Amino acid sequence: MDAIAPLPSRLGVVAAGGTIPIAVCEVAQKNGIDVYVAAIKGIADPAIERFPHSWVRLGELGNLLNTLKSAKCAEIVIVGAIKRPDLWNVGVDFGFIWHLPTILSLTRGGDDSLLKRVVKFFEGQGFTVRGAHEIAPELLAPSGPFGRISPTEENHHDMRRGFALLAALSPFDIGQGAVVARGHVLAVEAAEGTDEMLKRCETLQQWGGRKRAGVLVKAPKSDQELRVDMPVIGPRTVEFAAKAGLAGIAVASGRVMIANQAEMIALADRHELFIAGVDI
Amino acid sequence: MDAIAPLPSRLGVVAAGGTIPIAVCEVAQKNGIDVYVAAIKGIADPAIERFPHSWVRLGELGNLLNTLKSAKCAEIVIVGAIKRPDLWNVGVDFGFIWHLPTILSLTRGGDDSLLKRVVKFFEGQGFTVRGAHEIAPELLAPSGPFGRISPTEENHHDMRRGFALLAALSPFDIGQGAVVARGHVLAVEAAEGTDEMLKRCETLQQWGGRKRAGVLVKAPKSDQELRVDMPVIGPRTVEFAAKAGLAGIAVASGRVMIANQAEMIALADRHELFIAGVDI
Repeated sequence: MDAIAPLPSRLGVVAAGGTIPIAVCEVAQKNGIDVYVAAIKGIADPAIERFPHSWVRLGELGNLLNTLKSAKCAEIVIVGAIKRPDLWNVGVDFGFIWHLPTILSLTRGGDDSLLKRVVKFFEGQGFTVRGAHEIAPELLAPSGPFGRISPTEENHHDMRRGFALLAALSPFDIGQGAVVARGHVLAVEAAEGTDEMLKRCETLQQWGGRKRAGVLVKAPKSDQELRVDMPVIGPRTVEFAAKAGLAGIAVASGRVMIANQAEMIALADRHELFIAGVDI
Repeated sequence: MDAIAPLPSRLGVVAAGGTIPIAVCEVAQKNGIDVYVAAIKGIADPAIERFPHSWVRLGELGNLLNTLKSAKCAEIVIVGAIKRPDLWNVGVDFGFIWHLPTILSLTRGGDDSLLKRVVKFFEGQGFTVRGAHEIAPELLAPSGPFGRISPTEENHHDMRRGFALLAALSPFDIGQGAVVARGHVLAVEAAEGTDEMLKRCETLQQWGGRKRAGVLVKAPKSDQELRVDMPVIGPRTVEFAAKAGLAGIAVASGRVMIANQAEMIALADRHELFIAGVDI
């Protein structure tokens, strides 16, 4: 990982969905950082309200920028999941219209260039955009197996093939995830996302009913904008992987975030799935 | 394409699903070749019965080999689609058990090595395995647009990106198909097959309701065993592509087969989709 700039004393948190924004705020406060949350309405977890906050609609860009500026946040993190359909039903304000030329090329599918543009946009507005992983490195996947189960030799073979596949897909701005079972690529994630990919693996596994096989591999694309788009796994990923009959989950250590780590590991142990961080 | 050996006067046709086996028999007869069909029960189209034939269960390998030998077919084609679930419910005969060591490693997902093993198996039994495209080259995709609609510049850009992606996937024994829209990879085909991939694109297209965008690209893997595993498109592919809101379909000319060409082109014209063969 690159050297990390000193942490700010005050941090704006643009919070989208999931529990990661809450975890980031907790870690930041623990480390003595004042946080102010701009929570995206209808998307951020209402539990975020226990931190100083304002609710902002997705698309109310003028409102969002003013919120962050009024709260005197020179440094911000943009963190949490946004489901793609949410992007289609954006209610916009004048700030959005004003910045429309910058926004116009928002597209679906390869998100990487989109998210890089988001970072550039906020930087252009005078903010320093920090990565959630800089603020809360303890949320990153460590190396090695996390839970009770360790990958077998066959699983390691599938993991190597999977990570090689993700590397080959990187130039095409896809490839955060894939499923490899007994050396065969079952599924490749593109615009549908990891959960959808895992769902279809339920019907793709060959030796249904027998012992678990196959590995979900997850890693960022080689030039992915990790400041706003760190891959995340959590308990739901484990549930879908278990339903798909997989043996486990392998992630790039230090470059994938873990939501609800304790719950996720307990769930993996219960399902007898391994979860492992791999130094790639 | 490689130079093609002279056509035999007598040809065994191992017929699986779809209309391609029928088309191959028709072309063969027109060219003065005696055909004898070993039709896979429950999988081959019953219309195949108008050619001299026997029905053989999938898995009755002894029966299949005897059928072909009794019909004095030294050269054979193995043609048509086998849905993967069919492979799990195989009723086997003694011939299958006998040959089990050769068959044991049948796997799902990357089919390429499996199909190469099928060819080797029949060759080991003394048969010459011909490609359906050698017997009936008129079923191959020609170069250029087939129907009324031609690809736009944007479509050409998507096609180039799609074929580059398929080439990058080839070493992983997947990648017969992908969907690229406005430069972004929407979906990559692995074990689920083209139809399933197109189905999920219905919900992945960004600008729903507006004009069509995106291209399905199909090409064989670089070392695909074309004698038994030529990619095929047909009217159903066009239906799914239209439902997914795509602008068209691009295939590797000379290396993808077309089922029901006239019907497919009429359907594409009706849906205002282009279909084009590309020399890659």
